[in-house]
Amino acid sequence: MLTKKAILFIVDGLGGRPTDLDGETCLEAAETPNLDRISSGGINGLLHTVRRGVKPGSDVAHLSILSYDPQEGYTGRGVFEALGYGMETEKGCIYFRTNFATVDEKNVVEDRRAGRIEEGQEELEEAINSIELEDVDFRFKATNQHRGALELKGEGLSPHITDTDPHESGEKIKSCEPADSSEEARRTADIVNEFTKKARGVMKNLELNRRREDDGKYPANCLLVRGASQMMDVESLKEKFGVESACVGAGPLYLGVAKQVGMETRKPEGATGDFDSDLISKAEAAVDELENKDFVFIHVKGADNAGHDHDADRKKKFLEKVDEAVGHLLENLDWERTHMVFTGDHTTPIDYGNHTAEPVPIVYYGPKVRTDSVEEIGERPCAEGGLGHMEGLDVLPVLFNFNDWTDKYGS
Amino acid sequence: MLTKKAILFIVDGLGGRPTDLDGETCLEAAETPNLDRISSGGINGLLHTVRRGVKPGSDVAHLSILSYDPQEGYTGRGVFEALGYGMETEKGCIYFRTNFATVDEKNVVEDRRAGRIEEGQEELEEAINSIELEDVDFRFKATNQHRGALELKGEGLSPHITDTDPHESGEKIKSCEPADSSEEARRTADIVNEFTKKARGVMKNLELNRRREDDGKYPANCLLVRGASQMMDVESLKEKFGVESACVGAGPLYLGVAKQVGMETRKPEGATGDFDSDLISKAEAAVDELENKDFVFIHVKGADNAGHDHDADRKKKFLEKVDEAVGHLLENLDWERTHMVFTGDHTTPIDYGNHTAEPVPIVYYGPKVRTDSVEEIGERPCAEGGLGHMEGLDVLPVLFNFNDWTDKYGS
Repeated sequence: MLTKKAILFIVDGLGGRPTDLDGETCLEAAETPNLDRISSGGINGLLHTVRRGVKPGSDVAHLSILSYDPQEGYTGRGVFEALGYGMETEKGCIYFRTNFATVDEKNVVEDRRAGRIEEGQEELEEAINSIELEDVDFRFKATNQHRGALELKGEGLSPHITDTDPHESGEKIKSCEPADSSEEARRTADIVNEFTKKARGVMKNLELNRRREDDGKYPANCLLVRGASQMMDVESLKEKFGVESACVGAGPLYLGVAKQVGMETRKPEGATGDFDSDLISKAEAAVDELENKDFVFIHVKGADNAGHDHDADRKKKFLEKVDEAVGHLLENLDWERTHMVFTGDHTTPIDYGNHTAEPVPIVYYGPKVRTDSVEEIGERPCAEGGLGHMEGLDVLPVLFNFNDWTDKYGS
Repeated sequence: MLTKKAILFIVDGLGGRPTDLDGETCLEAAETPNLDRISSGGINGLLHTVRRGVKPGSDVAHLSILSYDPQEGYTGRGVFEALGYGMETEKGCIYFRTNFATVDEKNVVEDRRAGRIEEGQEELEEAINSIELEDVDFRFKATNQHRGALELKGEGLSPHITDTDPHESGEKIKSCEPADSSEEARRTADIVNEFTKKARGVMKNLELNRRREDDGKYPANCLLVRGASQMMDVESLKEKFGVESACVGAGPLYLGVAKQVGMETRKPEGATGDFDSDLISKAEAAVDELENKDFVFIHVKGADNAGHDHDADRKKKFLEKVDEAVGHLLENLDWERTHMVFTGDHTTPIDYGNHTAEPVPIVYYGPKVRTDSVEEIGERPCAEGGLGHMEGLDVLPVLFNFNDWTDKYGS
């Protein structure tokens, strides 16, 4: 263990637009005394997590901020969800995230989440795992509600295939198609279509589903797959920077990305990955992890969810909860030997309800930081800070530099 | 057609230096109430159209701003001029821009523009097209004054050859030489030298030239070629971004670059590509094009010409005309669903009289833009804006993000 400490605090969907709330962004409007304290005592800027003008998905944004270039080996989201659900993963296998869904007799999707089904996960998992496929092994893991992960294992498989999930109800299950001209993609797509048909066969007559239909509930009578992908072949954070690290989070995607890069993961009690998440519990867990780790990444999700729901008030209130969690860190860590970077993975404006390309505020705080004249956090104040505009891949090198954890280039 | 609208407004040679006018740049000194309005109501920054420290030619600057990396397939300017002159172009052919010029009996250039010849274009075109070359087809098109375009068509041709144009009077016509060690470049250079010699042969005895010499005018007795190049093999803007687009301009280079990337082009009445151009006519044409297009690019040239002529007063006055055209757009478009970016392609300082590498002001204006504290346009005010320093390739992705026209990277 090293003698100094570092924290990466990512607020999913942190950024906003002046159209959020009467000419202010949610972050600008929120009461955030602790965030204002790190802004005024730190150095501020704006972060383009992938590059300027690019709307980042959450997976590639987090990879970039953790210093992994998504252009080098990113194939899709499924593998991170599988990792986040606790599935053991292997190089070369293909991973998907899956939904239990409800389709009618013509394979038209009535509900993509089978009524957010809360029962029968074990029965469904067992039924699906009873299928036999030719020439390929697979494993299916049901997790919470409609969610799950699927692994295909065998020679000559490719992640370059399309989703069977139509992403909207009222549409038919899609045929899985190759996304490039390789033999492997063609073969993998055929396997997924065979699997989908057989899953439909074993699911439709389950006792569970008859009961649900009798009760007027959506049956879980098919499995939709999306995000076909493989493990990335990358060095761990320990190999790259020599740091022992942990992620404190709740959403499977974020825990999964952290596992991909070799971090330990911890989902503390009360952490939900939504608005109601106990962020003080997360801050406490981070303080605890820093007892025997060098670097902790804290992820909080509720601001993004509020943005997707077009709910400015909820986003503002969640950011006020974030402020309290940062206050807990300010009170409970040794700030003579700790550096923190506070930022987001992308902008989720209230009017748009999805990710956009505007940069997010970023603040570095700690004893070695060159301060600037920014006095409060916000998209527009941070634009005038001493950091200027940064890109995601530079976030950790800049943080670790303050702790002298990086090597000299040249001599 | 999409429901939102976007405008790219490029003022050629927009940028200046404080040496332009008693410590101010021409843009800072000009009276520009409408540009100040977009600066104070928008977000400002500085644009390096290619990259920091690079002096951009107009062709590569425009390609970059239109999101096409000149490092991927740019070979020279000739093809854009040919396109701008209305020549049909084909992949694989070699294009040049050409000048009718006057040489003496020792092939020394007396006038690179044959006295800006205003007559006989058809006669000259016919004479040159009567030449026969071995193993290669060609087409020559005369346009206005001394200007024209040449196409070479055949197997095994290369654009990597030098100009025959010495670029200064008092020098001999240059021999065309291969610019790399390929067989194709050697062969193409030989063809150009054969063509140049035969063109000299058919031009020198034209009745037109005898008459001009009798009148004491420069005869058009040779054809200088430069800018050997090929079509770029690139996706159109429609393919990249899904937008229907048009360019409103006058200079053939700009119309040609726009055609290369799949834009429709329009040269409105009164548009000249010089100081006297009717910019209100261009603004009206842009408003009209936006009736059934998603995206319009407006190009104005006069500021650059004034810079090349070392004429600060003329540049300042032209920028005041630009301001009026922007005022027309502000009054005549629906600014609840329109975003505009206003910028330049390079700096043309009055003292230097040619392109330099200093960045140019850039302003994004529209309902979704995060404003900053800049209150008036100018090189130095924009340096303090919320955009920071940008590069050309990011200009359109940032603009189109405001209209939700770009895809998410990752999920």
